[in-house]
Amino acid sequence: MNSVASEPALIGVDWGTSSFRAFLIGAEGDVIDGVSSPEGIMQVAGQTFEAVLDRLIGPWVAKANLPILASGMITSRNGWVETQYAEMPLGAGGLARALVPHEAANGARIHFVTGASTEHAGGPDVMRGEETQIIGASSLGLSEGMFVMPGTHSKWVQVADGKIVDFSTYMTGEIFSALKEHTILGTLMKEDAFSEDAFVMGVKAGLSGESNLLHSLFHVRTLPLMGKIPKVATADYLSGLLIGTEVAAATGEVKDVGTITVVGRSDLSDRYEIALRTAGFDSRRAPDDIVAKGHFLIARAAGLVG
Amino acid sequence: MNSVASEPALIGVDWGTSSFRAFLIGAEGDVIDGVSSPEGIMQVAGQTFEAVLDRLIGPWVAKANLPILASGMITSRNGWVETQYAEMPLGAGGLARALVPHEAANGARIHFVTGASTEHAGGPDVMRGEETQIIGASSLGLSEGMFVMPGTHSKWVQVADGKIVDFSTYMTGEIFSALKEHTILGTLMKEDAFSEDAFVMGVKAGLSGESNLLHSLFHVRTLPLMGKIPKVATADYLSGLLIGTEVAAATGEVKDVGTITVVGRSDLSDRYEIALRTAGFDSRRAPDDIVAKGHFLIARAAGLVG
Repeated sequence: MNSVASEPALIGVDWGTSSFRAFLIGAEGDVIDGVSSPEGIMQVAGQTFEAVLDRLIGPWVAKANLPILASGMITSRNGWVETQYAEMPLGAGGLARALVPHEAANGARIHFVTGASTEHAGGPDVMRGEETQIIGASSLGLSEGMFVMPGTHSKWVQVADGKIVDFSTYMTGEIFSALKEHTILGTLMKEDAFSEDAFVMGVKAGLSGESNLLHSLFHVRTLPLMGKIPKVATADYLSGLLIGTEVAAATGEVKDVGTITVVGRSDLSDRYEIALRTAGFDSRRAPDDIVAKGHFLIARAAGLVG
Repeated sequence: MNSVASEPALIGVDWGTSSFRAFLIGAEGDVIDGVSSPEGIMQVAGQTFEAVLDRLIGPWVAKANLPILASGMITSRNGWVETQYAEMPLGAGGLARALVPHEAANGARIHFVTGASTEHAGGPDVMRGEETQIIGASSLGLSEGMFVMPGTHSKWVQVADGKIVDFSTYMTGEIFSALKEHTILGTLMKEDAFSEDAFVMGVKAGLSGESNLLHSLFHVRTLPLMGKIPKVATADYLSGLLIGTEVAAATGEVKDVGTITVVGRSDLSDRYEIALRTAGFDSRRAPDDIVAKGHFLIARAAGLVG
């Protein structure tokens, strides 16, 4: 996939709850080949993780016994080998020192990346997999500033000098689904084309009403009932209200926000970019495959390649 | 049920989404007899509202053709006779003037109470049924101050001189259920005795972190995972976090909160009283059957009794 064909030096595996991705990585950190599958750690019932890995990347392993780095929920209690959480600040060196090696039955040597943890006034926060993506981004000129990683549980990450210095998780995506599918708010919602107007109206309400979400969610019901927004746009208003509330909270205590880097290529990332623009922030997209760059940087810091 | 046996003068019906209550009311506003049923407006499939009413309070109607006042979701689009929303400020006189009379096939004359609406910066707010309870409370020396009505959608109501001057709906109860039953937060929860410690810890987090609920909800997962609260107490922590957030938001912009009146006798009302105490507010309970007092006051203002 890269124009410079280099020798394979490393296999990077990003194994999450609901998806699997692997990368054959060259000696310069370039991605030579890639595999993806919906076989996340919760979707492999009846098979061992080893058997799934062998089936998905066996041909790469057969050619040369390359080191394998694995990150994501595969390192959690419900995964293959549980690793600890590393603390802040955290860079490629810290993650390299904390790698947990494991020899598979077929002789493959897998190095599991740790997760990361931080502590705020209200309680602990954790991530598994995102730390490797952030480290990867730092090799691409993105070694400073705020990152937002949209998803079921979005992460806001502060990076300085190529190291993660703090982060916070927002349950926005999962809460959106629960409200849409399991409360009275969903009863008016219908599938329709994305309404950017309704979404931006919701974002503005979220940006201005940050402290009162339990109340402003009721407007998701009253606004269409009173004819103030079209019923078909109600889901987009709700999405905007939640993401706007998240943006206000995540940026509210940061002194110099600067340009925010959005990680991901999904429709959800598009929504975050609209919300950031509405809030007056500059944003940019991280390149694809930053997780493979992260695997490479951690492996190099550990002396496994190069 | 009342020690002074007076002549029946009025029938009050409080017909909500999931329950039905009716009261035989004397000429002095005293409750002579009562009937309740789980046949809320969404639970009467295959029967007419008229047939249900006839079966439940037929004996009262047969004795004397008393006027009937009906309030609650029975006056909504999904109810029997849809009424409009009355605007603020709203007292017994305003509700009396807005009554919508309807003659049933059996000759019974039913007067439907309107709902109430108000408008905030973020959107409209509405209630149906609660306005009658609040008017009833005003006859019992509770004609001033803030009321909280815990429920699936709790209402915070400001009353001055016996009139409703403003109110806000909070979706707290429904959101609690959706999060507990349909997100990852519920996976650790087990049925157990109420843990007041965990509840109060959640209330304090809610009171202090009012602007960041989408983030602090993630602590409902990390705190038990890290052993900071017992897994069996997680649901109570979540409940406290949500109710604490609600209390902070609902009282945050009110200058002189004073003693808050809690309407209802449920376990949920007990939780609200603990949360109010934790926040440093005085509270008191409204008596039972204030809705029947409300029916009486509105009927009297309309010249239907006395």
